[in-house]
Amino acid sequence: MNDREKKLTLIVFSNDFDRATAAFILATGAASSGMQVTMFFTFWGLSLLRRKNRSRKGKSLVERMFGWMLPRGPEETSLSKMNFFGLGTNMMKGVMRKKRMPDLPDLMETAASLGVRLVGCTTSMGIMGMGREELREGIEYGGVATYLNEARGSGVNLFI
Amino acid sequence: MNDREKKLTLIVFSNDFDRATAAFILATGAASSGMQVTMFFTFWGLSLLRRKNRSRKGKSLVERMFGWMLPRGPEETSLSKMNFFGLGTNMMKGVMRKKRMPDLPDLMETAASLGVRLVGCTTSMGIMGMGREELREGIEYGGVATYLNEARGSGVNLFI
Amino acid sequence: MNDREKKLTLIVFSNDFDRATAAFILATGAASSGMQVTMFFTFWGLSLLRRKNRSRKGKSLVERMFGWMLPRGPEETSLSKMNFFGLGTNMMKGVMRKKRMPDLPDLMETAASLGVRLVGCTTSMGIMGMGREELREGIEYGGVATYLNEARGSGVNLFI
Repeated sequence: MNDREKKLTLIVFSNDFDRATAAFILATGAASSGMQVTMFFTFWGLSLLRRKNRSRKGKSLVERMFGWMLPRGPEETSLSKMNFFGLGTNMMKGVMRKKRMPDLPDLMETAASLGVRLVGCTTSMGIMGMGREELREGIEYGGVATYLNEARGSGVNLFI
Repeated sequence: MNDREKKLTLIVFSNDFDRATAAFILATGAASSGMQVTMFFTFWGLSLLRRKNRSRKGKSLVERMFGWMLPRGPEETSLSKMNFFGLGTNMMKGVMRKKRMPDLPDLMETAASLGVRLVGCTTSMGIMGMGREELREGIEYGGVATYLNEARGSGVNLFI
Repeated sequence: MNDREKKLTLIVFSNDFDRATAAFILATGAASSGMQVTMFFTFWGLSLLRRKNRSRKGKSLVERMFGWMLPRGPEETSLSKMNFFGLGTNMMKGVMRKKRMPDLPDLMETAASLGVRLVGCTTSMGIMGMGREELREGIEYGGVATYLNEARGSGVNLFI
């Protein structure tokens, strides 16, 4: 493998349970086989990095509304299809538990412990009005230039 | 063209008629111009590989429910937007037929006959409870490692 | 940077406000740092290239219906989530305006002025029944072969 083939860079745009799970299965699979993985969380995807009980002070009404409506971390995400007010998502989580597959929060911890770089998109944070104190610890921050620098040298780039 | 530029690798995550059609137009276009194409079908995308009248025995209730609700092959897929309970999808199919464009089942057969590799994601099959006897013949099976091996050497990687 | 690393090629499949904004933030960011950027607009994404008050003559009923229902240019796009009949989209646009961020029409003009190549997918135009006189000036046209030629030599390829 050359340098380029060792790198996987993902834009995680979505906060759907199914798409986020796919992203983290790819990321942990790649990292455990020795690849360098970077995940950029933009727009809805930022929700995955949120902590449960933190909110930045001094938010405008609109920013507070975004805060209420967006999932707070991976536990609160839902399927993009067949959600049926949470029933479909819970059914799928139940199946995964029964088959002893790691769930989304587990996959995220595994990714972090394997050295996957988690990067919060600062432009999206501005739009959503999210502060760094609301997002999980140990992540990095960057904008489009940071992303492009990383993606340019990566053999595998995906937008999820 | 070097080896890398000759390869197109797609993750087909979606089972929407529009996205699946886009994936197969890309795949058949690439294959007919001499590129090596691999398509990985994950999550909802697995539905595209299902046969019409096959069901694995011994399924749990939840697995049978997934089976009922997911499309059985390309004929049963719907537009991601403007579906209007099937009307929009049928309108679009009608237009494509009138303009003598190949439909989704045709595109899939063309892809297979051009040597496009169709790979069912075994992890997703586990989650959905789908057995190999339920999917079309002539496909391959693999997990994230299989995908990454292929994607690393591909000049064009997309997540659809 | 080698030639490959200088190129970003995007398939813009979606006409969602959020996804289109992400695509143009990437495109303008890349172009302003000296990268060569090509955007292929397929399926719903074609809506972004539509002019406000132009319609091709001699359309069939179905083609006219597509014309009525699809957004006419970037101003008419909506969020893929939390749209709430336009309220969510307007809230987000309001936040972006307040923070003096460029909106989607601005981003598109910036992209064009930075030399980003905007390419309308002729296959999708056939399906939707859209004529060239309905789309903005200064764009190029091409099909899957045009896309693959460009993507093969690009270091970063994304499907949005």
